[in-house]
Amino acid sequence: MKYLTNLNPLSKVAEILPQLKTISDVEKIPTWDALGYVVARDVVPTHDYPPHPRAAYDGYAVNAEATPGKFKLVGTVLVGQYRRDLVLKEGETAYVSVGAFLPEGSDTVVPEEVAKVEGNYVVIDRKFEKYDNVDPPGSYVRKGTVMLKQGTVITPFDVVGLLDVGITTVHVYRKVAVTIIATGDELITPPVDPEVAAELVQRGMVIESTASLVAWYIQTFMPYVEIRKKVVLGDKHEEVKRVVEDGLANGDAVIITGGAGPSEIDHFYKLGYAGLRGFRMKPGRPTSVAVVNGKPIFGLSGYPISALHGVIRIVEPALRHMANVTKSPRHDWIYAVITQDVPGEMAQVVRVKLSTVEGTIYATPIKVKHHSFTDADAHGVALTLSGGVKRGDVVPVLVYRES
Amino acid sequence: MKYLTNLNPLSKVAEILPQLKTISDVEKIPTWDALGYVVARDVVPTHDYPPHPRAAYDGYAVNAEATPGKFKLVGTVLVGQYRRDLVLKEGETAYVSVGAFLPEGSDTVVPEEVAKVEGNYVVIDRKFEKYDNVDPPGSYVRKGTVMLKQGTVITPFDVVGLLDVGITTVHVYRKVAVTIIATGDELITPPVDPEVAAELVQRGMVIESTASLVAWYIQTFMPYVEIRKKVVLGDKHEEVKRVVEDGLANGDAVIITGGAGPSEIDHFYKLGYAGLRGFRMKPGRPTSVAVVNGKPIFGLSGYPISALHGVIRIVEPALRHMANVTKSPRHDWIYAVITQDVPGEMAQVVRVKLSTVEGTIYATPIKVKHHSFTDADAHGVALTLSGGVKRGDVVPVLVYRES
Repeated sequence: MKYLTNLNPLSKVAEILPQLKTISDVEKIPTWDALGYVVARDVVPTHDYPPHPRAAYDGYAVNAEATPGKFKLVGTVLVGQYRRDLVLKEGETAYVSVGAFLPEGSDTVVPEEVAKVEGNYVVIDRKFEKYDNVDPPGSYVRKGTVMLKQGTVITPFDVVGLLDVGITTVHVYRKVAVTIIATGDELITPPVDPEVAAELVQRGMVIESTASLVAWYIQTFMPYVEIRKKVVLGDKHEEVKRVVEDGLANGDAVIITGGAGPSEIDHFYKLGYAGLRGFRMKPGRPTSVAVVNGKPIFGLSGYPISALHGVIRIVEPALRHMANVTKSPRHDWIYAVITQDVPGEMAQVVRVKLSTVEGTIYATPIKVKHHSFTDADAHGVALTLSGGVKRGDVVPVLVYRES
Repeated sequence: MKYLTNLNPLSKVAEILPQLKTISDVEKIPTWDALGYVVARDVVPTHDYPPHPRAAYDGYAVNAEATPGKFKLVGTVLVGQYRRDLVLKEGETAYVSVGAFLPEGSDTVVPEEVAKVEGNYVVIDRKFEKYDNVDPPGSYVRKGTVMLKQGTVITPFDVVGLLDVGITTVHVYRKVAVTIIATGDELITPPVDPEVAAELVQRGMVIESTASLVAWYIQTFMPYVEIRKKVVLGDKHEEVKRVVEDGLANGDAVIITGGAGPSEIDHFYKLGYAGLRGFRMKPGRPTSVAVVNGKPIFGLSGYPISALHGVIRIVEPALRHMANVTKSPRHDWIYAVITQDVPGEMAQVVRVKLSTVEGTIYATPIKVKHHSFTDADAHGVALTLSGGVKRGDVVPVLVYRES
């Protein structure tokens, strides 16, 4: 590493962003394959869900107005079955399992345990109200509701939530295609014999792990980036140059690790692109970036943590911008202060919206009847204790989207 | 879902743990393959690292006592080269690149920019101290230091830190082998035609996503678990039973999703194992667990979020116990209060130890000369601003290990 002079302030990254070509290719893909992609068009259902009243418990479907009463058992509807042929007449009932659409002529489910079966008849000895133990039509989602906004990175919670209401395709941006090149004649590339590698480290060689750490960070925090190629090269500059040019021609960005320092093996420098060379950051001073025809080339240190620092400060903001991301995914377990009482004898999982005020994170429960978890405004799920929690209590929250 | 009665309190999970067979198989594997494994023996280096003084900058290796002075340039050592043949005599210097071991006869590096080259000679016009711009022997790690404790799940930071000092193998526990079985005749299993799937959802069918969400959680938060098999079955109980028995015979645990409710399609119930059926949690009441010969079988709801709740409350504590985990990995971006001033003109990344006092998370910087990041006591890295941060400031922290 050189004592680089004229280092750039980190704020200079902002000058790079407008030069970058953002991804404009939009694809329509199955929802089950959409994890990590960026929503290109607001996701808005064209129908209410459920389309018909749906059983929330196993039991007997009846017309609430006829309760209490004695009903003739005329059929069964299990979840997944479509029984629009079954129409209940006055004084009739059908067995339904949780998730099944209620047969026409019924609006309520009497839980199995509460009903008394007498031969072919079911006796219900108390009054039930319409939609008791039922998810009414549209209770999961209403036609026209924005379930996910353009720019949101799709999380596992979104996938299950969309599939739950029958949204099976989404319009997404193509992922940002990145090539990672680790350089350095000193590098040992696994798999190798561990004993031999250990001996070589004692002799000054280095086991490649920088590009692997960079790839881990990208895969974990930037799923909207596709690592198109990851190679370990020596310091033969012509070979490095060839892979860089291929990465630019066939992808959107190139990351070079190592050799960012002394001019004789500084591949980034030797490529001759104009850009920002060196930033006021420690470690990672040699971090560099140039933009060629709207595509960035990043030069990172060969040291793992220095390179990671460069990724966090320089690479991530640039690629996130290219990917059109407004909301990144998260997979954090954090603690937050709950803003409302959540009563309840049972331990619960509650969908929450997060906000930060003067360094304290607050979790506000989002009330919903169903458990489908796609909501443009939700950031995570909070765990409560048996007996409930009080406003002001600190609760663990699994955060799946940045707030 | 039945109105289950006699639900178990969550605290009953503690009674299950002693019945579980913990993993005792220990394997010695290459460090570069060790991500997510659990350390079975404390990782303790048998040597200091670096073994010799190592250049921290590109420049000229000299004996500090001879500075200022004029030195004859007699050779070059680049990182990765092993030049124990090169011995500097009085008045001699060699060019070294960052990471290179210093040739014998030198103890200091004069940065390239500070030296004046005159033909075959290098003029140094100021005084340098021993080990200036050098990582002294043992400065990365000392022989005998516990770098990772038994029970720690290996993170990407540990991999790079261990490789950096030449620790190329680790003793780890075999991963916990789990079979996941999604059941239900109502399930549609992708890949299918999305338009057809959407239509089937309108008719009451369900696109399988519960087992996928469970698998995502396991892969993200429990890397010490290997998903040996993940299958979607209908409600043919004999088939479910066969896969359960195979999962127990050839693995360590089985997870069944769906059908946890009405007795006629409750596979968990029909298997006939004694155990805990139903917990005081919402959603996810039907969550169940039985232990057969030290191996757990979990019954989870068919609803994605209910199943996830069961994983968090019941499955994770059990499998974590079986895996011998004392410290789980994390990949959280959180905010914490820094406990010391971190001065510095440059934006920095600083290794920290986390602690929580009355709901506030504190980050205490761990001072180290080098940037290798394996440390049994470290939990994350904090980002500071240009100009430094003051004690009490809130800083972002990338957490990689639970505190």
